Amino acid sequence: MGFESNQGNQFLLSKIATNDGHGEDSPYFDGWKAYDNDPFHPDKNPSGVIQMGLAENQLSSDLIVDWIRRNPKASLCTEEGLGSFKDIANFQDYHGLPEFREGIANFMGKARGGRVRFDPSRIVMGGGATGASEMIIFCLADPGDAFLVPSPYYPAFDRDLGWRTRAQIIPVHCNSSNNFQITIPALEAAYKKARESNIKIKGVIITNPSNPLGTTYDHDTLKNLVTFVNDNNIHLICDEIYSATVFKSPSFTSIAEIVQEMEHCKKELIHILYSLSKDMGLPGFRVGILYSYSDAVVNNSRKMSSFGLVSSQTQHLLAAMLSDEEFVENFLVENSKRLAERHSRFTRELEKMGITCLNSNAGLFVWMDLRQLLKEQSFEAEMELWRVIIDEVKLNVSPGSSFHVTEPGWFRVCFANMDDNTVNVALNRIQCFVGKNNKKEDDVAVTVAVVAPTKPKRRESKLRLSFSFSGRRYEDGGVLNSPHMMSPHSPLVRG
Amino acid sequence: MGFESNQGNQFLLSKIATNDGHGEDSPYFDGWKAYDNDPFHPDKNPSGVIQMGLAENQLSSDLIVDWIRRNPKASLCTEEGLGSFKDIANFQDYHGLPEFREGIANFMGKARGGRVRFDPSRIVMGGGATGASEMIIFCLADPGDAFLVPSPYYPAFDRDLGWRTRAQIIPVHCNSSNNFQITIPALEAAYKKARESNIKIKGVIITNPSNPLGTTYDHDTLKNLVTFVNDNNIHLICDEIYSATVFKSPSFTSIAEIVQEMEHCKKELIHILYSLSKDMGLPGFRVGILYSYSDAVVNNSRKMSSFGLVSSQTQHLLAAMLSDEEFVENFLVENSKRLAERHSRFTRELEKMGITCLNSNAGLFVWMDLRQLLKEQSFEAEMELWRVIIDEVKLNVSPGSSFHVTEPGWFRVCFANMDDNTVNVALNRIQCFVGKNNKKEDDVAVTVAVVAPTKPKRRESKLRLSFSFSGRRYEDGGVLNSPHMMSPHSPLVRG
Repeated sequence: MGFESNQGNQFLLSKIATNDGHGEDSPYFDGWKAYDNDPFHPDKNPSGVIQMGLAENQLSSDLIVDWIRRNPKASLCTEEGLGSFKDIANFQDYHGLPEFREGIANFMGKARGGRVRFDPSRIVMGGGATGASEMIIFCLADPGDAFLVPSPYYPAFDRDLGWRTRAQIIPVHCNSSNNFQITIPALEAAYKKARESNIKIKGVIITNPSNPLGTTYDHDTLKNLVTFVNDNNIHLICDEIYSATVFKSPSFTSIAEIVQEMEHCKKELIHILYSLSKDMGLPGFRVGILYSYSDAVVNNSRKMSSFGLVSSQTQHLLAAMLSDEEFVENFLVENSKRLAERHSRFTRELEKMGITCLNSNAGLFVWMDLRQLLKEQSFEAEMELWRVIIDEVKLNVSPGSSFHVTEPGWFRVCFANMDDNTVNVALNRIQCFVGKNNKKEDDVAVTVAVVAPTKPKRRESKLRLSFSFSGRRYEDGGVLNSPHMMSPHSPLVRG
Repeated sequence: MGFESNQGNQFLLSKIATNDGHGEDSPYFDGWKAYDNDPFHPDKNPSGVIQMGLAENQLSSDLIVDWIRRNPKASLCTEEGLGSFKDIANFQDYHGLPEFREGIANFMGKARGGRVRFDPSRIVMGGGATGASEMIIFCLADPGDAFLVPSPYYPAFDRDLGWRTRAQIIPVHCNSSNNFQITIPALEAAYKKARESNIKIKGVIITNPSNPLGTTYDHDTLKNLVTFVNDNNIHLICDEIYSATVFKSPSFTSIAEIVQEMEHCKKELIHILYSLSKDMGLPGFRVGILYSYSDAVVNNSRKMSSFGLVSSQTQHLLAAMLSDEEFVENFLVENSKRLAERHSRFTRELEKMGITCLNSNAGLFVWMDLRQLLKEQSFEAEMELWRVIIDEVKLNVSPGSSFHVTEPGWFRVCFANMDDNTVNVALNRIQCFVGKNNKKEDDVAVTVAVVAPTKPKRRESKLRLSFSFSGRRYEDGGVLNSPHMMSPHSPLVRG
């Protein structure tokens, strides 16, 4: 055991194994641990932590179950399907089952309103979105090469894109003044600055619809992005794993539509990441997809895909399901409708409590604005508030700092990984936490007065905060004239 | 398209994507392509290429199918199992389903005669053996670090262990004089030489049972290997993916047994790779396992396993199957028995034709000695002979050069990926190819006389070779006194 000391490991193990590039020390993962230690259950543990840090879609699994019940032949393990067992269990061609690639291409097209077609021969498998994301970086970047990524962005990008590839992420910070939209001048400035520092920029990576914002990129911004990467001869990677979660207008525009429209763009610079984890709620099935317009990337990534192929058992099942036009069309409509209802109800109730979220049209989460509740405008204060939300309110939400945002006080709150009853419990807890009135008599309860809005466009709030907090007292904050900005904990953005 | 020229790609893509580190230009993969273009089918294409280059176990899938039929609840997609669908489809904990890890640990123990127990908490998933192999290298080695690997070895090790990790493989050449067994003096010499060249050796990697030899490491050699890595404070990675293919004596000794026996060895230097692709014939299911005695490696590799987790649908099915003691015990006995029968029949028929194979007790292949048929003792001659076997005899076998062996004339021939009828066709083709008598009158047929044995211990052969070969004539070779040794095509062993 002494042998396995840090010093010993640093000698015996790789730098990758002994650095913290996996990012699991970030708050995002801490919240998961809190949940794991005390998970909410309506009967067995009604005061446990409710998991609202998990962007999971549990609203439409009944549609999939129904389909499976009606299509026993699609499974390898039914009397109707067992005849295929041997062939499928032995199938290891890294191109994947042709019918699986066709099904995926069909689903991807339908999720974009049928406005674009995807070529099944360009569908490459990866081990979940995680594996597919790493794979495209291995194809494009040498160690030290960098990608510009608008922030806030998915925390595990640091691990997925940079840990083993040794590529860098350079955040391009967006802020609430324009609803966190990326602008071309901001990209150009970041690109120029990196070049001046002798950092080789290999591309731009966007997530559309955005995680954590729940917003979609508009048509013009996408066109401008394509022009930007064309002009600089760098890549554009579009993570579209939330494409079928768009639940209200504006509608979703895929980069595939822009490629179709801008006939003379350098298509080979454009790559799409996809997955069924979010849109279909099948994260366990590890279906990651890379769709590239570059022949060289398709060929190379297919060779790499051997490191994380999709189980042929799973390919076989999904091939049949995703080729069923009627099922796919119905699923997309119904899934979107259910997400709309959940989102609408959740945000409406929050509004009643005086809590606003960024206006969003997609995703499995809201980007909740709790800046008013911060003791001061700093990430230290955000972490304090977050600890209270985890430990006292017993909700695992994700602090904005873990998404590399530069403004403290934003939280990502997931709403689609639970049933209606759990949503009610969560809303009740938030209601208690953010009391409309401030009259609690409990002697362990303390009161945090509302800080006045710091941004002119935000409306006056009547938020009152009421909670117990052991060993520490919040004092009325009043108006914070001089917000103190701390660097968010960023395990990955390294040189 | 001009944009996607090599020059363009070298600028746009990574070095990994533009080097040939995936090794698909090796003869091993060429043979697969020949098969893919003209695959044998008993009715539809009876003169097509028979795939004998694929180490696949198709002999026992009926046992698995029977079990599935009797256990509908184990599947997510049956009426009995659908109740678990939502939970399992959403399951994405990288620890894996506890019952899956228990099932794997149980199977691994049983496959070693129950002489050792495996701790489920040390079972880490990887994307097939391919992903698991890469994962352990990422944990142990920095770019440029090297591992000693006895040759001949599995050709795709170059891709799996070195392509994306940028680690090196240094072959330690074994030869037929002692049946290709590794010796400690050979290892020591290779280690010393590498150190003198300032190459950092991080460990030794063995495949036990060996691919392509089909032999197992004896108890003393394994002990000596552990002592060797202990003395030098480097790692020992044991690829045991063929452990349940041992079909006759001597019985298999796992490194796990040695660890148990050598109580005071540095256990944390020992790591086992496992998979169900070979032992159970489930390569499509992508079940790769890393079992490490190092806590640090378990922790780190588990974080890495996110890049290639096993589909939860597949975990769920196998969890139930591998925990069924009766099934597992019966499967292991029956699988071994069927492999023994196939191996015995195949080698017996070859012997009748005067073809010998290395004496083996495991694996899904034989290591066939065709040195006598070479025009000269060179790898050029081996490639010529191999092209004839592929193009004329229409058997895809794998040339020894692709396994990095130093003696030309050996071929790996797989025998467990086909039914009895296909074996008969293959044997008939070999029989025609290697005619007992030499009386063919066909005017395109040419005759290759037997070259006298070059090794004193090999018995006299009466081999006669008869085949058509367009555009080229083989001449009697006579005794080759001065074999010309070429370097085998080695895409990966780079500095």
